[in-house]
Amino acid sequence: MKFSFKNDYSEGCHPNILNALLQYNLNQQAGYGEDEYSLEAKKLIKEKIKNPHSEVYLVSGGTQANLIVISSVLKPYQCVISAAPGHILNNETGAIEATGHKILSINTEDGKLRPSDIIPVLESHTNIPHQVMPKLVYISNSTELGTVYGTEELKELSDFCRSKGLYLFMDGARLGHGLTSEISDLTLERVAELTDIFYLGGTKNGALIGEAIVINNQDLQQDFAFNIKQKGALLAKGRLLGIQFMELMKDDLYFDLARHANIQAMKIKNAMKEKGVEFLSDTYTNQIFPIISNELIEVLSEKFEFYVWKKIDEKSSAIRLITSWNTGDEAVESFIEIIQKEL
Amino acid sequence: MKFSFKNDYSEGCHPNILNALLQYNLNQQAGYGEDEYSLEAKKLIKEKIKNPHSEVYLVSGGTQANLIVISSVLKPYQCVISAAPGHILNNETGAIEATGHKILSINTEDGKLRPSDIIPVLESHTNIPHQVMPKLVYISNSTELGTVYGTEELKELSDFCRSKGLYLFMDGARLGHGLTSEISDLTLERVAELTDIFYLGGTKNGALIGEAIVINNQDLQQDFAFNIKQKGALLAKGRLLGIQFMELMKDDLYFDLARHANIQAMKIKNAMKEKGVEFLSDTYTNQIFPIISNELIEVLSEKFEFYVWKKIDEKSSAIRLITSWNTGDEAVESFIEIIQKEL
Amino acid sequence: MKFSFKNDYSEGCHPNILNALLQYNLNQQAGYGEDEYSLEAKKLIKEKIKNPHSEVYLVSGGTQANLIVISSVLKPYQCVISAAPGHILNNETGAIEATGHKILSINTEDGKLRPSDIIPVLESHTNIPHQVMPKLVYISNSTELGTVYGTEELKELSDFCRSKGLYLFMDGARLGHGLTSEISDLTLERVAELTDIFYLGGTKNGALIGEAIVINNQDLQQDFAFNIKQKGALLAKGRLLGIQFMELMKDDLYFDLARHANIQAMKIKNAMKEKGVEFLSDTYTNQIFPIISNELIEVLSEKFEFYVWKKIDEKSSAIRLITSWNTGDEAVESFIEIIQKEL
Amino acid sequence: MKFSFKNDYSEGCHPNILNALLQYNLNQQAGYGEDEYSLEAKKLIKEKIKNPHSEVYLVSGGTQANLIVISSVLKPYQCVISAAPGHILNNETGAIEATGHKILSINTEDGKLRPSDIIPVLESHTNIPHQVMPKLVYISNSTELGTVYGTEELKELSDFCRSKGLYLFMDGARLGHGLTSEISDLTLERVAELTDIFYLGGTKNGALIGEAIVINNQDLQQDFAFNIKQKGALLAKGRLLGIQFMELMKDDLYFDLARHANIQAMKIKNAMKEKGVEFLSDTYTNQIFPIISNELIEVLSEKFEFYVWKKIDEKSSAIRLITSWNTGDEAVESFIEIIQKEL
Repeated sequence: MKFSFKNDYSEGCHPNILNALLQYNLNQQAGYGEDEYSLEAKKLIKEKIKNPHSEVYLVSGGTQANLIVISSVLKPYQCVISAAPGHILNNETGAIEATGHKILSINTEDGKLRPSDIIPVLESHTNIPHQVMPKLVYISNSTELGTVYGTEELKELSDFCRSKGLYLFMDGARLGHGLTSEISDLTLERVAELTDIFYLGGTKNGALIGEAIVINNQDLQQDFAFNIKQKGALLAKGRLLGIQFMELMKDDLYFDLARHANIQAMKIKNAMKEKGVEFLSDTYTNQIFPIISNELIEVLSEKFEFYVWKKIDEKSSAIRLITSWNTGDEAVESFIEIIQKEL
Repeated sequence: MKFSFKNDYSEGCHPNILNALLQYNLNQQAGYGEDEYSLEAKKLIKEKIKNPHSEVYLVSGGTQANLIVISSVLKPYQCVISAAPGHILNNETGAIEATGHKILSINTEDGKLRPSDIIPVLESHTNIPHQVMPKLVYISNSTELGTVYGTEELKELSDFCRSKGLYLFMDGARLGHGLTSEISDLTLERVAELTDIFYLGGTKNGALIGEAIVINNQDLQQDFAFNIKQKGALLAKGRLLGIQFMELMKDDLYFDLARHANIQAMKIKNAMKEKGVEFLSDTYTNQIFPIISNELIEVLSEKFEFYVWKKIDEKSSAIRLITSWNTGDEAVESFIEIIQKEL
Repeated sequence: MKFSFKNDYSEGCHPNILNALLQYNLNQQAGYGEDEYSLEAKKLIKEKIKNPHSEVYLVSGGTQANLIVISSVLKPYQCVISAAPGHILNNETGAIEATGHKILSINTEDGKLRPSDIIPVLESHTNIPHQVMPKLVYISNSTELGTVYGTEELKELSDFCRSKGLYLFMDGARLGHGLTSEISDLTLERVAELTDIFYLGGTKNGALIGEAIVINNQDLQQDFAFNIKQKGALLAKGRLLGIQFMELMKDDLYFDLARHANIQAMKIKNAMKEKGVEFLSDTYTNQIFPIISNELIEVLSEKFEFYVWKKIDEKSSAIRLITSWNTGDEAVESFIEIIQKEL
Repeated sequence: MKFSFKNDYSEGCHPNILNALLQYNLNQQAGYGEDEYSLEAKKLIKEKIKNPHSEVYLVSGGTQANLIVISSVLKPYQCVISAAPGHILNNETGAIEATGHKILSINTEDGKLRPSDIIPVLESHTNIPHQVMPKLVYISNSTELGTVYGTEELKELSDFCRSKGLYLFMDGARLGHGLTSEISDLTLERVAELTDIFYLGGTKNGALIGEAIVINNQDLQQDFAFNIKQKGALLAKGRLLGIQFMELMKDDLYFDLARHANIQAMKIKNAMKEKGVEFLSDTYTNQIFPIISNELIEVLSEKFEFYVWKKIDEKSSAIRLITSWNTGDEAVESFIEIIQKEL
């Protein structure tokens, strides 16, 4: 069996979660998220963000979280602004448009949005009522390119959005990785302060399924549960989500798992950098995009699975390597060994 | 702690499932339902229905299954026909309409549909193009009232639908209970023959989550996966669904669990019948609706949780009792004991 | 040529409208409803309802008005309450559901809604968040059955809706006929006071096309024009709508036309009543539903077109006769003559 | 009063249309497009395209035509490909997305699409089922930039679309202008051969309202009328549309009007070219984009209305001038006079 660096959802879940599922399995609980584990998970999250006025909702996956949040927040004629690599733009089969809303795409080099990126979009959407009205700014942290937002950047964007009446929504499918990146000074507490809505991704950070949507803007909380149910996202056995986030939130397991993934990626990155390898983008989370020769790709492919991300020229391509909460030292070391031998 | 007869999703899942989740947890697998467990689960289901041309898709829950199937099958101007107690009509927050489709409701005493119920609806929808076009007949088995379809009934309905160009879709959230009811002569194989699409419900029959959608009509299979993804229902860790259905399909565990639930309900039903209790409807699955006095409701409520379903008169109400794969003899016997003592 | 009593949109439009179209034809005007005729029409309507805070929007037809109003006012999980004969339920090809919203149907004998009809619907929709949330009450005046609301009735319904947080929306496709009915004490001014939104129908009352949506509830006015554009209802040459409503609003032409239609219908009704004819419902607007013998239907069909509405028994049916702003005395007298001769 | 070159919908309609509306006004006709004028208009269009198997449907406006066609043709997960200046992308308030479908935008210099533009989009949408499926290519002729398709270009695009299973849909809001452009060799008959669906725009070419949708691909004709009704676009008095297209189709009035508009624009263009004026794009239809000094803009603005389209530098801007079926020689000559005097 080859070891896979293809993504961060190749394995099951952290053992603590399975143990808890076993331990609580036969306890009878209320359905639809009213179980005690879900209540406890929500309590833990609200403690961590230090905002008792936020509300937490647990759903199964990222596309689901994105489409429920966006369709519940926007009026029919309002639209989303996203950086061009945004997951909602490229990898969700038009899930947002299927709820009736346009996404305006902004080209940015690093997958992040700044006020200066958004201003021209606002300026070119003033032909009322012939154009959609931009109303929600969608960002990811870490981004789809593996980059991260710093506190100052996020504050500047948040201030801008508030001054323009735009909602700020952070896709946190890899929020753990973003916040535990060695170059990040951002905290979960600050994320909750600076966004209207964000979510904590579980699926890509040690859970079987699950994203915890946190609505900080109280105007957007009302009746939110109706939207979850209507989109088919309200699990009868909400305990499955509750138990997972309860375990992930205990003792910062969530952040420990993400930090581990980042560290493993950085080990490989640094080993490659030492050998002079260049990268498609300079990332500090669990996704790296080294540019290597076709020969090296072939050699590595004998032992490892990964995506060839982008052809650079006839002789080389960028590959994408993703590490996870469960990427062990052995795999990393074995990969590095080949690098050191071949380069 | 009171024992709950409120529903069949109060507990976690059958131990076999948790054991399998543990056993396979660290195996790296392809994402999005391409894992080997999902493939094995689909294979087992196709063997059981004896139709290699059917396609199986695993999703998280019933509302999700209903909205994905219906929105993928209908054109914008086509609508659904459902019996009035249909789950899609009453308990899914308008999930079907949210995808753009009307549901025409038919009043029937037992929650089942017959050709004679549908004919008047077709006849009153001929003002082209001013009315929606009925195109899909939605039935549940067992129904929301606990009743079941027999083979002859389903065959007659199926023949009728085919003669009228209507799709027949069976909501099988409680299909196990329907097929293992002591009065049912219907088999899974026949269900697959007689419907265009149906699903095998896991959530209410021993799984943590999961419904297995089976598309028998090959015209409706094309590109179906796009719809699953677009509606946010394609789990990155599809293994979670795959492992559950793999286990439930082994050695007929799925049917054993449902049969157990039915048997426990019948024990209570028969004990009450012997004491002269009447029922709101004559059901043979895991839902029963006995009519009892307010005093007895109070006594039972000291030890058990259940829904008071419908007020009958000043002195009595129908209650709803639901048993599950995990309803033990102790709870049933303790309940019966009270009945026998009080009546 | 047979004379048609099939509907009130068989002819073109009132001559004043054509004259105005000719007169202003070559004046250059701003597009999209910013022309001076639209502005004048809106001013006249606001004067007539004596509410300077209402806003008026002109669109092409009734289905369009209904779907734009409803989809702009409701959140995704909110639904409409309508009497069973409601146009939106039966004759608009699922236009409302196509925008994502369920309509709850209430059976009422006369096609009107009263608080006592609505209360049970509210009471049966309290299983949050598993059911749609009723939020808008849709009524028609005159109704699809030709009946009308009196001031007291509308006031009671309006008070009820406000006390329950429900919007009240009146479909006024035949509002002229409703208000000029001999039994109506309701005025346009009161309609504007008592509803959140209503519209003045032009198509069925002497215009070529056009309905004037009036939004009285200021909370619902914001950004409404975006919805009109998005649904394809913002005419580039808004003058076509503006000129028509400008003419209809001058000197109460709108009400004179409707009153004429009502009077013609009442002549026929009274003539039939004198001959002992019974009616499906007791209407006082331009729709009547006499029950006559198959033989008489045959005789009348030689000279007139009308719909056979409902079979009563083997020997007789109810027919539907509709008169219009342009139904002349000759047609009416000729019809009555046959009645008097044959009965 | 200043003369307006702002658009081609400033005036009412061609006198023939008003005369016909007057002439036929009191004839009773069937509703909803079954009137004899609509039938005649459809017959005339089918004769002109020489395709008896095409079907024609009359609706009120361009946004309406676009949203009905696209939403009726696509399955929920399928999307549209459009050039970046496409009307559906920028000027319809998200009308297409509101029906659930994404539009993929392609940057092209002249607003036209070629196979080489589309191939990369197809190649980057192969991650099934995680991405939308491109299925319909939307083009405008003349384009939003005033450019036109030649026969060879359209044939090449059509062949490409057919080879890839893509529908080709031509927005013909200004089809008359496109086909009568002095540089166009394309005919209406060829348009009907080479596209699956197109429409003949009336609103911008002498009608009060109205676009005639022509469906050439017989697979897409079935049940189309349901979509028109559902979107609120089926006029009760369909005669209004029928009479207009009947008149426009008689003796090629439609093309004469468009040719006139083009000629008037070319007169201005040529006069400006002679004076050395440069243009934003080299157009041969009724839209021109001359680049002139701010001073000249000021002088022209004293007598004429037009849009300042794009700032070029501190001293000059491109303006947009649009001529119409009704732009008289006087206005054109007076404009040219100023040009000749000032430059």
